[in-house]
Amino acid sequence: MTDAASTFKPSKSPHDVPTGASADAYGLPLPPLEPVDGPAPVLRSAAEEARTIMASTNLGNLASLTADGDPWASLVTYGLMDDGSPVICVSRLALHGRNLAGDQRASFAVSAPIPADEDDPSDHGRVSLAGIVEEPAGAELEAARAAYIAAVPSAATFASFGDFTFWVMRLKKVRWVGGFGRMNSATAEAYAGAEADPVAPQAEYAVKHMNEDHADALLLMAQALAGHSDATAATCSRADRYGLDLKVETPRGNTAARVSFAEPITAPDGLRAATVELTRRARGEQ
Amino acid sequence: MTDAASTFKPSKSPHDVPTGASADAYGLPLPPLEPVDGPAPVLRSAAEEARTIMASTNLGNLASLTADGDPWASLVTYGLMDDGSPVICVSRLALHGRNLAGDQRASFAVSAPIPADEDDPSDHGRVSLAGIVEEPAGAELEAARAAYIAAVPSAATFASFGDFTFWVMRLKKVRWVGGFGRMNSATAEAYAGAEADPVAPQAEYAVKHMNEDHADALLLMAQALAGHSDATAATCSRADRYGLDLKVETPRGNTAARVSFAEPITAPDGLRAATVELTRRARGEQ
Repeated sequence: MTDAASTFKPSKSPHDVPTGASADAYGLPLPPLEPVDGPAPVLRSAAEEARTIMASTNLGNLASLTADGDPWASLVTYGLMDDGSPVICVSRLALHGRNLAGDQRASFAVSAPIPADEDDPSDHGRVSLAGIVEEPAGAELEAARAAYIAAVPSAATFASFGDFTFWVMRLKKVRWVGGFGRMNSATAEAYAGAEADPVAPQAEYAVKHMNEDHADALLLMAQALAGHSDATAATCSRADRYGLDLKVETPRGNTAARVSFAEPITAPDGLRAATVELTRRARGEQ
Repeated sequence: MTDAASTFKPSKSPHDVPTGASADAYGLPLPPLEPVDGPAPVLRSAAEEARTIMASTNLGNLASLTADGDPWASLVTYGLMDDGSPVICVSRLALHGRNLAGDQRASFAVSAPIPADEDDPSDHGRVSLAGIVEEPAGAELEAARAAYIAAVPSAATFASFGDFTFWVMRLKKVRWVGGFGRMNSATAEAYAGAEADPVAPQAEYAVKHMNEDHADALLLMAQALAGHSDATAATCSRADRYGLDLKVETPRGNTAARVSFAEPITAPDGLRAATVELTRRARGEQ
């Protein structure tokens, strides 16, 4: 798991160094005091991270080329084909539409939604894709239209105008950046075969709820499941289909830790049952 | 005012047609029944719109060129020089940093913050800029660093790492899209000389407040100041330093209308006083 390694290893280059408060407190992991039982830690792959971010919004940023070969950045709405390829629908009267008609090389950047009160969007998930756009035809055109309108319902009006063209991006490069010190590339094949994390839409709420109402359970997880038996406090910093990221305070210092669910979650509403199971396991109840 | 014209004229091309509910109800203006007194309507210029959007966030989308001349889209945080030029700070170890070091042509797209529950981000303000990035030096480097850290406070940590480079974009093209049917270009000179609308950060709240608590005043404005003396209801759809956009219901049909403040607002908290003045004028109190 290169993703797991890049999350927890000491950084090799300055731009991999986590910065800010959490970096000082939690950047370098402490070794567990006890051997850790239970499922081996699993993290989402870069391909899954990228699919998850692409599924989280319908607004992306197209980079196309003008007739002079200059880059042109523009905001566009998008839908997703089954293999995660972005579908866009742009007017040939607009510059980005003329650009794509003239040169099919394109890149697409998408940011996971960022809370309005966040001052540093650098520490949020984002993805850059690159490849070639193609006009779909026949059954693929219908699939592209359906995918686009599912993501952008109001497009049902303008998508049928004669000057609008659907484009599907055939991907060659996938680059994921999860935040400070969390980044990796994925192959186009891995991206096409990966699944968006089904619990991602619920994760932010679940993390808030656990931190507000279940600090005792989180502490127990850090002590019993992450090997930090001397932990004095723990909060959850991230939840995904495979487990929870914890920030743990110990007399030895503070550390990040990971606890994994018994099984990957497959349903959007599965976080509650999975964290209940974790809590029971931490209590030695199973 | 070409911007004013593009907002209210019947659209000439399909991609200029407003779509969705508001288009059916309010897309085509009705002539006022009465001559309209008071200040001539003023709308923000495309340059002001662009400066306003650029001031509304710190997250933008860079389009750069790889060594092969392919476009590459990536998310970056930015600050603003006094003339509105974006300042970014990127690692030379990252692909976009290597791209800019190799070819200084660049473009930058920024979207005004979009409510999380909005399904169609196409109907929100956005801007595309294009030009050449340059490494600032001397006093300009210090100004660029200060502008960037003012916008992205956590950057104080990584901006001093040796592999990070500040780049200031020298603009050649400015393209503003305000939403369906509202779009225009600005010259780089107009953009540099324009000011961000000081009331923009308060406008969304002010519009909500007026619609919830002052429907009577809005109706009076439509009747007395916009010439729609037969209006039966009015809501505010947008507020800026120059005035209010109204959606007006009349027995003749529904229409968009504009009412202008006595003077452009110059202070961030000026919307309340200006709308009170409008209300008094609508009541014939001044």
